[in-house]
Amino acid sequence: MKSAASHMSKNDDKPGQGSENTRPEARLPKGLQDASAQEIRATEAMLATIKKVFELYGFEPLASPAIEYTDALGKFLPDEDRPNAGVFSFQDDDDQWLSLRYDLTAPLARYVAENYQTLPKPFRRYQTGPVWRNEKPGPGRFRQFMQFDADTVGAPSVAADAELCMLATDTMEALGVPRGDYVVKVNSRKILDGVLDSIGIEDGRRLTVLRAIDKFDRLGEEGVRLLLGEGRKDESGDFTKGAGLDAGDIDKVIASTSPLSGGNDAVLDQLVQLSDTEAGAEGIEELKTIASLVEAGGYADRIVIDPSIVRGLEYYTGPVFETELTPTIKDQRGQTIRLGSVMSGGRYDGLVARFTGERVPATGISVGVSRLLFGLQLLGKYKGDESKGPVVVLVFDKDRLGNYQRMVKTLRDAGIRAELYLGSSGMKAQMKYADKRGSPCVVIQGGDEKERGEVQIKDLVLGATLTKIEDREEYLKKQAEAQFAVPEADLVGGVSKVLDRYKA
Amino acid sequence: MKSAASHMSKNDDKPGQGSENTRPEARLPKGLQDASAQEIRATEAMLATIKKVFELYGFEPLASPAIEYTDALGKFLPDEDRPNAGVFSFQDDDDQWLSLRYDLTAPLARYVAENYQTLPKPFRRYQTGPVWRNEKPGPGRFRQFMQFDADTVGAPSVAADAELCMLATDTMEALGVPRGDYVVKVNSRKILDGVLDSIGIEDGRRLTVLRAIDKFDRLGEEGVRLLLGEGRKDESGDFTKGAGLDAGDIDKVIASTSPLSGGNDAVLDQLVQLSDTEAGAEGIEELKTIASLVEAGGYADRIVIDPSIVRGLEYYTGPVFETELTPTIKDQRGQTIRLGSVMSGGRYDGLVARFTGERVPATGISVGVSRLLFGLQLLGKYKGDESKGPVVVLVFDKDRLGNYQRMVKTLRDAGIRAELYLGSSGMKAQMKYADKRGSPCVVIQGGDEKERGEVQIKDLVLGATLTKIEDREEYLKKQAEAQFAVPEADLVGGVSKVLDRYKA
Repeated sequence: MKSAASHMSKNDDKPGQGSENTRPEARLPKGLQDASAQEIRATEAMLATIKKVFELYGFEPLASPAIEYTDALGKFLPDEDRPNAGVFSFQDDDDQWLSLRYDLTAPLARYVAENYQTLPKPFRRYQTGPVWRNEKPGPGRFRQFMQFDADTVGAPSVAADAELCMLATDTMEALGVPRGDYVVKVNSRKILDGVLDSIGIEDGRRLTVLRAIDKFDRLGEEGVRLLLGEGRKDESGDFTKGAGLDAGDIDKVIASTSPLSGGNDAVLDQLVQLSDTEAGAEGIEELKTIASLVEAGGYADRIVIDPSIVRGLEYYTGPVFETELTPTIKDQRGQTIRLGSVMSGGRYDGLVARFTGERVPATGISVGVSRLLFGLQLLGKYKGDESKGPVVVLVFDKDRLGNYQRMVKTLRDAGIRAELYLGSSGMKAQMKYADKRGSPCVVIQGGDEKERGEVQIKDLVLGATLTKIEDREEYLKKQAEAQFAVPEADLVGGVSKVLDRYKA
Repeated sequence: MKSAASHMSKNDDKPGQGSENTRPEARLPKGLQDASAQEIRATEAMLATIKKVFELYGFEPLASPAIEYTDALGKFLPDEDRPNAGVFSFQDDDDQWLSLRYDLTAPLARYVAENYQTLPKPFRRYQTGPVWRNEKPGPGRFRQFMQFDADTVGAPSVAADAELCMLATDTMEALGVPRGDYVVKVNSRKILDGVLDSIGIEDGRRLTVLRAIDKFDRLGEEGVRLLLGEGRKDESGDFTKGAGLDAGDIDKVIASTSPLSGGNDAVLDQLVQLSDTEAGAEGIEELKTIASLVEAGGYADRIVIDPSIVRGLEYYTGPVFETELTPTIKDQRGQTIRLGSVMSGGRYDGLVARFTGERVPATGISVGVSRLLFGLQLLGKYKGDESKGPVVVLVFDKDRLGNYQRMVKTLRDAGIRAELYLGSSGMKAQMKYADKRGSPCVVIQGGDEKERGEVQIKDLVLGATLTKIEDREEYLKKQAEAQFAVPEADLVGGVSKVLDRYKA
């Protein structure tokens, strides 16, 4: 029979080339990965919980496609030489540039601008899905990853920002993170904006300043000071150019973005002393309102004002917030892991105006899905797949496939996850297959059992423990439990007996 | 305050250009669409049911990324002039070509070839997700759409194919399609292969023949005959070149691919008469085995052998199958809609060999998610969102935001979907907002209610019916039900009273 390969690869048709040389290699591009069943199950369970909380808060789902016009994403149009800088881009038939979305916020701004007239205002939506970044991949840094966002568009009141902070706390609790093991930190970007205005930092350098401060957690004050000044050389010897601020200005920036303590009221009092700009005063007013709403809602112990939160994105215009898991998390080698924020966002009142020219107030929060799952798993949650594989009906006698098929059907009709062994190997390989699938038990019917109208049920979990039993009597007892016969008519009962042993 | 726009668009920085001219238009590229909340909810409900059936059959989830190496997808490497023909393609930093997956089968073949040693064999996985086709969009034809696939790799036995046909029927029933309203049609590609071999149709023309026969449903025998011969001009005047077969060969092809009736045994008897090639005999053997397994499983009335099923893809090597919804479905104008197959697939033993050189038997089935949902909705199912919007707590007195926030929290803590009105408009606009969100009721507390320690609850569904009531007594009674006061402490009870009225 002819192979499909001859139709699939152009090169195969070229005479004089062996197909050996032209066969593609089975591999993924760097920074991309397949997700295993266990990973998928854990992620889906986590996402379902997050969704429940977002729904409870009144957000509605929205799904936008993966591809958008490049200009609609607010990226520079691709440089012909480097069309994929940062995002994956390609040209449509009509030569217009398209890109894969790099987050869920830019497509939301496009959607709101496109449908503004017909939307309820405020417009509240959640969206989950993959985003793509054409960046250098690294450990834990992929070029495709999931986000889960909630945004409120058209609400100028910081009550909308306060609500997102509450959403973050309620999400953490729904996910099983105990109170005290997480904290939501909130600040207003306006406080730093005021300082930068007063010391005359122009737009071009602001992003450098933001990114420097955003590294406080990782580099400490000394590292941030270097990045605000001339620059910093990291352990590998790579030099990052700094924002070029002088020592006095660095002091001002550090003073206004250092963590403060003593509870929200005390922090606000200290901030008033530190901030003497008009923008800063606005920011403090915002934080006061948020603090009072948080207090009213009973969240004051877990949503705390923290001036060190600035976020590394330039488009924020007001409150910004981050969610941290607070227990010290160690990896397998005992190294402390700095997880960073698992759910963060802020107010971005200027994003829709890119399209319409009119400012539309908006605020949103985004779950870093992989990072959060990683953190939860290190805390012992969402370890995934406790579910067993399917019951496998083995094929002892190939002529009686129909019989075995009927058994599978009987099990499935009873709601039991089951399958017929579909390979072509003998009994030993079939048992190995069932083991590899994590089957709780297999069903066997040889000629003798057939004659007696019976089936053998073999508990693979119990079976695997038998060799460790030293006591003879105990062994015989367990052996009888691990493999037993039932009348074929009682197949479901027999299998259920095994399944009941491993119910969570 | 400065607008985020100034940071987002390069063109804005160019002097002498008004931002009016350089603002991007808020729109999606052709053939792409946003999905509404209602659509998402209906799709998710349908997918959850499909997933349950696939799990019951023992398939495990797998997720591969959206991007693959172009050569791994089995597409010709992009032509520099038309890199996006059929698929969306772009070059990586190292100049290698990447593409968005156009189905879920090609990535599966790559995954299996890459991980063959460690996989259980047979390997059984399901996967759902978007795929992308760079084709001309049309009504109901999008450039991004969802698929939901199940495949068994490494099972040479047609028991694996028979199982996928059973999976299709069980999926239809789980989705609420009554027995008799769907049929799974199965054939073996080998029967046609034998005919094409015997009349000497070379590889290049086979796809044209397949595509012609695949249109039987839509064009009827006459149309197919034209496409097998010189070609066919459609209603719009467009001419499609035919396969160029002569009249005798066309007769042979038509005879071997015409629908037969009388039950599976009778159809098999007729097929034996029609097919005299070696490949054809193999195909008939396959179908006999499938028929007997289907019979044993009790599916014989709904999985029928039908020689007219060939599928329009060249890579199938054995059994092929399609699922049809059989009721006559009419659109809103009373026109009969030809929906086509909603769940189809077949055996493709050559796909993994593209990478490894070794044939790996494989068979799979794919749900056309949008088409199936469309069909189910026309049958009155999965009409979507019966769920009401959130309860909205209105903001009567802006100074008491904290109070209102606390009410929202109380409702949420009781598991009631609720939100604080977050906009800045007055009461009339707030009521309109709640209406637009589909809220079952709103909660109002003005100064008077506050003093009395009460809240007003207004049932928006009942409220909307009041104007239609003519009887005064009835009106007063309903009015009292539609808006009533409860003590603030009984907020949850009062709201629940309304929610209970609209529970499904």
